[in-house]
Formats: sequence, structure tokens, C-alpha cells
Amino acid sequence: MAKELKELTNRDENYSQWYNDLVIKADLAENSAVKGCMVIKPYGYAIWEKMQQALDQMFKETGHVNAYFPLLIPKSFLSKEAQHVEGFAKECAVVTHYRLKASPDGKGVVVDPDAKLEEELIIRPTSETIIWSTYKNWIKSYRDLPILCNQWANVVRWEMRTRLFLRTTEFLWQEGHTAHALQSEAIEETKKMIDIYANFAEKWMSMPVIKGVKSESERFAGAVETYTIEALMQDGKALQSGTSHFLGQNFAKAFDVTYTSKEGKLEHVWASSWGVSTRLIGALIMAHSDNNGLILPPKLAPIQVVIVPIYKSEEELAMISERVSGIKAQLISKGISVKYDDRDNLKPGFKFAEYELKGVPIRLAMGPRDYQNSTIELARRDTLTKQVVSVDGIAETVANLLEEIQENIYTKALRFRAENTTTVDNYDEFKELLDDKGGFFLAHWDGTAETEQRIKEETKATIRCIPLDAPEEEGKCMYSGKPSSRRVIFARAY
Amino acid sequence: MAKELKELTNRDENYSQWYNDLVIKADLAENSAVKGCMVIKPYGYAIWEKMQQALDQMFKETGHVNAYFPLLIPKSFLSKEAQHVEGFAKECAVVTHYRLKASPDGKGVVVDPDAKLEEELIIRPTSETIIWSTYKNWIKSYRDLPILCNQWANVVRWEMRTRLFLRTTEFLWQEGHTAHALQSEAIEETKKMIDIYANFAEKWMSMPVIKGVKSESERFAGAVETYTIEALMQDGKALQSGTSHFLGQNFAKAFDVTYTSKEGKLEHVWASSWGVSTRLIGALIMAHSDNNGLILPPKLAPIQVVIVPIYKSEEELAMISERVSGIKAQLISKGISVKYDDRDNLKPGFKFAEYELKGVPIRLAMGPRDYQNSTIELARRDTLTKQVVSVDGIAETVANLLEEIQENIYTKALRFRAENTTTVDNYDEFKELLDDKGGFFLAHWDGTAETEQRIKEETKATIRCIPLDAPEEEGKCMYSGKPSSRRVIFARAY
Repeated sequence: MAKELKELTNRDENYSQWYNDLVIKADLAENSAVKGCMVIKPYGYAIWEKMQQALDQMFKETGHVNAYFPLLIPKSFLSKEAQHVEGFAKECAVVTHYRLKASPDGKGVVVDPDAKLEEELIIRPTSETIIWSTYKNWIKSYRDLPILCNQWANVVRWEMRTRLFLRTTEFLWQEGHTAHALQSEAIEETKKMIDIYANFAEKWMSMPVIKGVKSESERFAGAVETYTIEALMQDGKALQSGTSHFLGQNFAKAFDVTYTSKEGKLEHVWASSWGVSTRLIGALIMAHSDNNGLILPPKLAPIQVVIVPIYKSEEELAMISERVSGIKAQLISKGISVKYDDRDNLKPGFKFAEYELKGVPIRLAMGPRDYQNSTIELARRDTLTKQVVSVDGIAETVANLLEEIQENIYTKALRFRAENTTTVDNYDEFKELLDDKGGFFLAHWDGTAETEQRIKEETKATIRCIPLDAPEEEGKCMYSGKPSSRRVIFARAY
Repeated sequence: MAKELKELTNRDENYSQWYNDLVIKADLAENSAVKGCMVIKPYGYAIWEKMQQALDQMFKETGHVNAYFPLLIPKSFLSKEAQHVEGFAKECAVVTHYRLKASPDGKGVVVDPDAKLEEELIIRPTSETIIWSTYKNWIKSYRDLPILCNQWANVVRWEMRTRLFLRTTEFLWQEGHTAHALQSEAIEETKKMIDIYANFAEKWMSMPVIKGVKSESERFAGAVETYTIEALMQDGKALQSGTSHFLGQNFAKAFDVTYTSKEGKLEHVWASSWGVSTRLIGALIMAHSDNNGLILPPKLAPIQVVIVPIYKSEEELAMISERVSGIKAQLISKGISVKYDDRDNLKPGFKFAEYELKGVPIRLAMGPRDYQNSTIELARRDTLTKQVVSVDGIAETVANLLEEIQENIYTKALRFRAENTTTVDNYDEFKELLDDKGGFFLAHWDGTAETEQRIKEETKATIRCIPLDAPEEEGKCMYSGKPSSRRVIFARAY
């Protein structure tokens, strides 16, 4: 059985298959009976819950509140914002009827033609339209602003090609929708939220990201400006990990949402929206994991420490279990989540492999000799190294090590990104390196959608973002030779 | 403006309108642009979050884990369990297409006839079918059991008559779905969960409930036995507040879910499912609130204490604010949620009315005299009484009082229920009292669906449950005169 657990495809041979194997074998998620929709299994969902808790706290600390808006949106709402409908109409789940009835042959059910909706409803692909139709009634005066709402919800986008976590027809996310009196406030909010996402990615997911703005053609449908965080996966492809949109007055105008200013003037409201999704679980997996399985940063690991007893007799097990219960209590009192795995039908080696696969950051193992010496074997998942440590002060040792692991995973990912970020000025060199090892490419671009499109068609690489911290630098577009004033990031992306 | 706030319909004159007014005016929820679907506003959602936290902890402490299953269910799944399809097919939102396209006149979007699904999907009205189709792959041996999964999700049931929180087309809930090797384990789980719901209702919502089993005709579609908790609202109507179903092997057989027992035999799995929903917010409102607004039990109140400064000058405000910041810190350190409302455009009287409307359990108000005397005025929402207390030890005073309020709201509701529970043996007397004051009626019933149906048709009262603690008692059915061995509870219900 230990063998079966380990049967991950080799990451370096087939990254894509390695990822799929890992999601399944680590019990994170699986495909469902409904095409493109996943089942998030308890272990995967526990990671999402950790993400939710951390993000929710950050949102609340910055003055946001949660609310809930309807799943279903009248079809006509979508068309109110011209670009929005362009972006989303093509991938909508459409509800047309509200009843089934027994089929004529009595063997099943069919749609009842008498229960046709007057206006079809779509399942929200994102909630700008239903929310702005609601905000219209909430906003009268400048005193009603800002509105800083977030919702945790499911959304549906009818994707043709899906992959667990990365692109699924239904996914879970949070979407913030804010309304402001002033343009400057909405822009400040948009930036604040991309900063929160970047902070979450780096501090919680141990995943370095580049903050930037999207080019016009990669913008959210209906946004004036889209801010993004872009992470680099271990196969050299980029993954957009969170976006925050400055929506200008587009939705306020589409839904006629105005307020009376302090000066008594009627003005349209300014807006932002921002979201991250269960896609982050895919990012987490692809940013860190290896051929032994998941590597989870301690802050998001459902189980931070597993303790495995090594014994030959019931007597030894009883002795060890008693000692372990003391250790467990010490760890728990430090807020560390611990599992003691004393299942008696599995060998220690199998358990070790299982927890490596599941990315548990620290594994402790105690045998009879450790018991006598008041020691315990401590194994790190990130480095796969082991040491024997004293049971005295074990909670402190583990707590410090968890922090170190959190940091180390980040440092390793940062180093990987540095090694795989190339400054390039020549299009042929770019294409060669892109095929060769991928990664991020800092290159000049002439700012036209045409060049962007051609590069995409020729190389499948897209402009991931124009980094916020990109210095002014005179240069020439690597494709057209036209002048450019700063480098942007090109990469192939998920 | 204070007047407008108070304009609740009188509870005793029109209970139904009072409820609707209160939900709107206390900013809990509102109707959306989509018929029957509500928007849960931040204040209402904050109550739901408190409910979720408490329940989620109880579920986890009893060994349950969260997971997430698809929103969409293939139409054919519904028909696999004969009673289940009977119960749910008539109120399903049906997804038939996956794309919209520009309408011929270019002014909107229409359903794209080329994007018709091969098999229609329904939006989950409950998830037994999709979950049991998934469990089939999770379960091979007795070692894979039990499975104790819960999910927090939205569901859709196409209701014709809707009311905010009480009956909405889309609602939020949790649904637990467990799988067991033995019948006895599944029954034990079913009972354990109804006990958890009862405990939550009583300890958190301060709402007494009667635990019982449903009559056959009121059972969940697909259940062998349905356990329920029934609460009494202030208008004398019952509200079903949570249900836990023993599903027998019905879904295991429908989806062919079997396991190999310790003895090597292939057996069908046993199941339970259980859920509570945002309906509980409706119950909470109707169980306790009055003509001044909401009365919230402290454990579920988004704001437990509000502090209002009373001042004439900026100077006084500054002094008071400084003292209040110390008090606020003390309260927060005890885990009490506090809001300091120093908005300068509203009079204290308006604020008082607003927080009464919103059900904040304790209001503190400090004026210049209080400042000098080191006192503060303390007002209780549940009794509408006021007293002046010392600022010394205020955190202790408030903490104790919050507990007292939690208890007092419960006691009051319990007394109300006792006063409105009638033991009745005569059908005419039953009908008269039912019209007169409503409430719970303990009556003998002959156990037939026919009698139950007739009583329902003649009086609109239904059997809420057969209480678990109902003593054996020889008697005669109040309707048919046939023998009965215990009393059941009749009531009109939401």
C-alpha cells in the first residue's frame, strides 16, 4: 500500500499529470458527476477554511462586512454594462424552467414545459450586476457611503476545459463590492485590496507574487483598471492569483446609482470589486510541492504536526501513547494543530509516506528508545530532513520550527522565481527561452493590443501585468521595435 | 427621523406585517430583483455568521468535517430515490443551456439554442443525491466508515409564496450527510444531531424547542424517520427549526453504495442527513422581539454593547470619548463586542431608538454628570429598564448582565410556551382555542394519515411532532375517537 501512495507521476517528467495525481491522491478534490464541477474533499476544504479565516479577518480589520446576494441574476441585468455582457454571456448557466414532472414513460422526470420562466435567470458568474441593482436602493446621500461589502459565495462559469481548482465550472470565492463617493477613494480601495491579497499570498501561502496592472485586453469585463497578483509556478507558468478592479462609474451608470454630495449635487457613485477563489489551492499546490507530495505552509496546513508511535507490543504503545498525550497537550496549548495517528493496521513507513503526501509540515515519531531517552524524532516536510530532539521544551521547538518552515518555503519560492525571471530584449531569444524553461520575462512592449495579440498567437505567452514597481526605462518593444518606457511581464499562464 | 425608525406595525395588531417591517427596518434582509430570492444585509448576515461559528464548532467537536459538493445535479439523479423525486421535482430550478448570445435586435441577450445541455441540471434543493453518488466511490470497506461530512451551502427550492428568512427560493444552510456501517450507528447519529440543534436553539438562540419525530406524511422525502425541533412563535404558530433524518439504506440502495464488512460481507451503507438554515434568523426574530424592535440573545448579537456619548460641546465629547475608550478596551478584553457611536449628526434619542430596533442587548450612555461621578447609564434591551452603575468593574457588570439577559430571554420564551400549550381532548374545544389564541396542543391522534389530513384541511393545524418525551398514556383520538397511546403536538405552523 505504501507503494500505491507514492505512485505520483514524476513532477519533472509530466508536471500536469503530477498535479492531477497529487490533487487526487492527497484527497484534496475530485471530479464530480457534473462535467467541470468538482467535489472539494474534507482535506482540501480544510485548507480553504484556513484561507477563508485569514482573509476574512483581514477584510474585517479593514472595515469590510459580509453580506449575501442572490445566486440567480435576471438575464437582462447582464446586458446593462456593455463590456460585462461581452465577457460573461458566453459562459453562463441559464435557468429556464422551475419545475420537473414525471416523464410520460413513468421512468424518470422531464422538464415541465408549463413551468417556463418569463425571463431566464443566469447563475452568477460574478455579482456586479445584481449587487449594483441592490446598491441603487441603499445609496441616497454621501452619508450612505462608502459601502464596503464582501460575500463568500459559489459562482458558475461554463468552462470548456477544466482542471481541479485551477479552472472549474463552479468554484468558491469571495467577491468584494465597494461603493464610494469619490474616484480617489475607489482607487485607494482597489489598491488596498490588491495589497491585502499580496500580503496573504506571501505571508500565509509563502508564495511570492508580483503586483501589477493588467493590459487593456486582459482587464476584467467592465473595469477601468484591473490590478493583479501574479505568481510563478514550478513549471515556469504564471498563475493569476487575485484581482482587484477599479470599476469607475461603469456599473453606477449602468444601474443609475447616484448620491447627493455634501454640496447637494447628484453624482454617480464610484466602485471597486475584488476577488480570490479556490484557485488559490491550485496555486498553493503548484508553487511548493514535490515528488513526495504536498508541501503546505504551516499557517494553512490543516494538520501542522503528526505524531506516529513506533512499537512492537501493546505495552510499548501504551507507554508511548501516554507520553505523547502530554506532548500533544503542550502543542495544542500553543495553538498548534496535532494529530496522533495510532492506527494499528498500518505500518509507520506507510504513515510517513501518507503524511508526506499530505504535506504535514512536521512529523514526530516516538519509539521505545526515544521513550527511554526522553527524545523524539522530528522530520521536516519541506527539507525532508530528520533529527532527534529532546522532549523537554518540545512545544517551543516545534513552534519555532513551524515559523522557520513558513519562511523557508517562501524563500525557496522566491529564489525559484528569481532564477526564472529573465530580462529580455530580443524576440527570438524570448521565444527560445520561453520554450526552453519558461518563467517570467521582463520585456519592453509598445503598448498596443495588436502587438500583444500577435505575441500571444505566436508564443502563447501573455502580458501578465505591468508591475507596479517597474522603473521608468527607455527601451524598444521586443516585437515591434517601437518605443516603450517600462518593461512588462510576459509569461505563459494557467 | 426618530419617528420613522419607530414606525413598526404594532405586533399585536398585525403580527405578519410587524415581522416584515422589522426585517426591513432593522436592516436584516430585503427582497431582491429576483422573485423569492433575498438579499441578506450585513447586519442580518452577521447574525448568520455567529450562528455558523457556534454550529460549526459543535459539529467539529463531534467529529464532523466540512466538504463541498456541486451546486448542480443531473436531472436523472433526482429520480433514483422514488420518494425524493416526489418531494423535490415540483420546485426545481432547471438549467437547460450554457450560453447566451446577442439578441437579433442587438439590444440584449437571448439564450443560445445551440448551447442546449444534453441532460438538464437542477440547482440543488438538497444534496443527498449528488453526495451519495460521490460516496459510492469513497466507500469500499468498513474502514472507510463512518463518513461524517457537513457542507455550508446555498440551495434553491422554487417556492410560490415566499417570506424573508422563513421561506425563500434561495436560502443558506448547512447539510450534514453521514454514512455508517450499522443501522444503530446511523440512528445514533441522527439523534445526536437533533440534540445538537436543540442545544443550539436553547443555549444560543434562547429559544425553547420540543424534540420529536414527524408523522409519516410530514417526513423528509426519502427518510425513514425525521427528527425535528419545533419552536413556538409569539403569534402562537409553530416553526420547524431544524431536522435530522434517518435515511435507512434508501440512498445507499438508490446509488448502490456498499461496503465490505469486517466479516467480509458486502452490505449497503446506512445514512443520516440533517440541516438548519437561515430560517433560524426568522425564528430568532419571531420568538423574542417586540414593538420596539429586535431582541437578540447576547450570544448571537453582532453588537453586544453600544456606548452613546451625551454631550453639548466638543470639549465634553472629548472628555467622554477618552473615558469610553478605556471602558471599551476593558469590555473587548472580556471578549465582548462593543460599538462606540459618536456620530455627530444624530441625537442620542435617535440612536437609542435605533439600537433598540436592532436589538443590541446593552446600551451604555455617558453624559457630563456620569463623567464626573464615574458612573454610566446602563439600559437593558430585553426589559427596557435602566440603571446608573459605577464605571469601576464595568466589564464584570456587563459580562454578568449579558449572561443574565441570555437566560432571561430564554425563561420568558419558555414561560410563553407554557402559557400557550394546551392539553386538549375535545376536537371542538381544540378548534376554538386554535382560532382564539393558537399555541401548541397536546392531543391524542389515532396514528392515521387520513385523520391528520382531515384535521389539516379543517383547521390548517398539522402534527408538528410526536415528542420524544411524551409519556405513554391511554386515550382516544380527539378527531376519530379511536385509541391512541400518546399525545402528539398539533399547531398551525410557518
